[in-house]
Amino acid sequence: MQAIGVTREGDEPELLDVERPEPDAGEALVRTLRVGVDGTDHEVVAGSHGGYPDGADHMILGHEAVGVVEDGNGSGLEAGQVVVPTVRRKPGGETNEYFRRGEPDMAPDGEYVERGIVGEHGFMAEYFTSPADNLVPIPDHLAEYGMLVEPVSIAEKANDHAFATREPFEWRPEAACVLGNGSLGLLTLWMLDREFDRTYCVGRRDRPDPTVDVIDEIGATYVDSRETSVEALPEEYEPVDYVFEATGYAPHAVQTVHALAPNGVGALLGIPGPWEFEIDGGQLHKEIVLHNKCLVGTVNSHVKHFEAAVDTLGEMPEWLLEALVTTVATPDTVEAAFEDDDDQIKGVVEFDTL
Amino acid sequence: MQAIGVTREGDEPELLDVERPEPDAGEALVRTLRVGVDGTDHEVVAGSHGGYPDGADHMILGHEAVGVVEDGNGSGLEAGQVVVPTVRRKPGGETNEYFRRGEPDMAPDGEYVERGIVGEHGFMAEYFTSPADNLVPIPDHLAEYGMLVEPVSIAEKANDHAFATREPFEWRPEAACVLGNGSLGLLTLWMLDREFDRTYCVGRRDRPDPTVDVIDEIGATYVDSRETSVEALPEEYEPVDYVFEATGYAPHAVQTVHALAPNGVGALLGIPGPWEFEIDGGQLHKEIVLHNKCLVGTVNSHVKHFEAAVDTLGEMPEWLLEALVTTVATPDTVEAAFEDDDDQIKGVVEFDTL
Repeated sequence: MQAIGVTREGDEPELLDVERPEPDAGEALVRTLRVGVDGTDHEVVAGSHGGYPDGADHMILGHEAVGVVEDGNGSGLEAGQVVVPTVRRKPGGETNEYFRRGEPDMAPDGEYVERGIVGEHGFMAEYFTSPADNLVPIPDHLAEYGMLVEPVSIAEKANDHAFATREPFEWRPEAACVLGNGSLGLLTLWMLDREFDRTYCVGRRDRPDPTVDVIDEIGATYVDSRETSVEALPEEYEPVDYVFEATGYAPHAVQTVHALAPNGVGALLGIPGPWEFEIDGGQLHKEIVLHNKCLVGTVNSHVKHFEAAVDTLGEMPEWLLEALVTTVATPDTVEAAFEDDDDQIKGVVEFDTL
Repeated sequence: MQAIGVTREGDEPELLDVERPEPDAGEALVRTLRVGVDGTDHEVVAGSHGGYPDGADHMILGHEAVGVVEDGNGSGLEAGQVVVPTVRRKPGGETNEYFRRGEPDMAPDGEYVERGIVGEHGFMAEYFTSPADNLVPIPDHLAEYGMLVEPVSIAEKANDHAFATREPFEWRPEAACVLGNGSLGLLTLWMLDREFDRTYCVGRRDRPDPTVDVIDEIGATYVDSRETSVEALPEEYEPVDYVFEATGYAPHAVQTVHALAPNGVGALLGIPGPWEFEIDGGQLHKEIVLHNKCLVGTVNSHVKHFEAAVDTLGEMPEWLLEALVTTVATPDTVEAAFEDDDDQIKGVVEFDTL
């Protein structure tokens, strides 16, 4: 079957011819419909994140997928059911406390593999197999955009964790700011715009730009970080109650504290490399304390967040989904889905349709 | 009446002769029993924190107090009731949303005054008045150590806010570490030692030392930060699930992230001045994200935390309370309560007994 992967020799996604996988007991065979591409995929391709399955000379890419059950294989799933696979799996097939609790997203290094990212093949192939417990059913009418369930689930978890930090008191947030205008940032911006009175999205682009068009259409305010740094948000616009960081730009962690209103919370999601710089650590510490601020990091997501994401996806307007999916490539034209220029928001590889 | 205060000319606590206050409507008159001294008092005396009441040439010190109602004044409190006053009050007597919600501890700068710290006289006098809503009743048998309710309430709030951040998942913490071996640190250490399997307390003292004796007696492990830095805790001892920072030493905010186990949370309580230093901001950001870590700042406390603190104080063993209160001075010997050497843990000024 056709698959898109990286090899130890190559430095870009390649069309591979691999054997169709056979489902083990408890697994279903899934026919892939669409697989999205995100920043993590680019890092995996560049070799800066993740790692190959044990002993393999290639890794199939892709962790944002939607497919249809081809063979339930006695797993409890019926053939024809549209499903979205979760990403984290048991390392070497061996379970641990995090998987037992249904919270592999909270597992530390070494206690998981991630399909298409680290240690296990991804979903960017005509077929994949998966334990039925890791396949989240979605309605047929969401199949076309089902590959967005995974990124939306990342935002669901981050929001869930961030808002929980404000539960001990009466939090009355009004303004939220998303750092980053990639597909995750824009999906999250739409979600937050439903909950907050005023929303902002920080990017580094000149108009006209497709991401800024989406920001405008959502009704949020675009903030060009070349003109207004994140720490200047309170002076130039307003202090914000919630910051959702989706850039991986390391200074944003510190700047977020200064952008926050009293009692605000910042969710950090980016994964920067090492970067030493000077901060006013005294001011940072004092600001966190005197204004009851919070920074919370979150990574990955699991079934409950996927389920919430299915509901959220179902509420997203058609214009947003159409605007976000800028490329639908086939396995033969896969490089178009991996193009990373200013016209691309979300590239998708389509293997089949319902 | 006798009062202990600071004046604009002086740089140490002075015995003042001031007029006995008259309770307004809704206020009770309280006869002061004991008032504790903490690091904030020393900062107020040194002029580095807080500020005088409007137009006053002196400020009465003290925010950790216990007293007995002398005159309920129709406020609903009976004469003879032992009470502990809360610290934050309405600025200029004018309410705002934070006071309406009963959460002045969440109010930003300018939306509150703090008795004995900023903008309003404290409790270090023979009598004070207070709205009855700001007086938390405590049992008579806790009167002797009632001045510890306020610092314990600070820990109650911090723990409450910190643990709330871990609510969205099954947190199974085992180890906690308190940074700082002052009275707040030691009170908190005892509280955490009831909840966690293993506890640590970081200080900078040579044995024999009265704070290290308390750490030993609690059953916690003393960590000398001159030998083991906070970021080296995971290597030298173990990664800890909870860090309670009570030092105000700015690098601890960053070091806390590295001391935490995956999914851990650090509560920051110290209030450092400006201090620029270099950090690996990339590593910090990545560590927060990839291991779902959290930093939460908390300041002050209010009635619900005081009420929890009354329960906690009632459970504290006599040996701990006796060990913590190292000086009981009178107004005439007040300098002994403000001594800040290695033999002092908590100095107290006693105005009267039940």
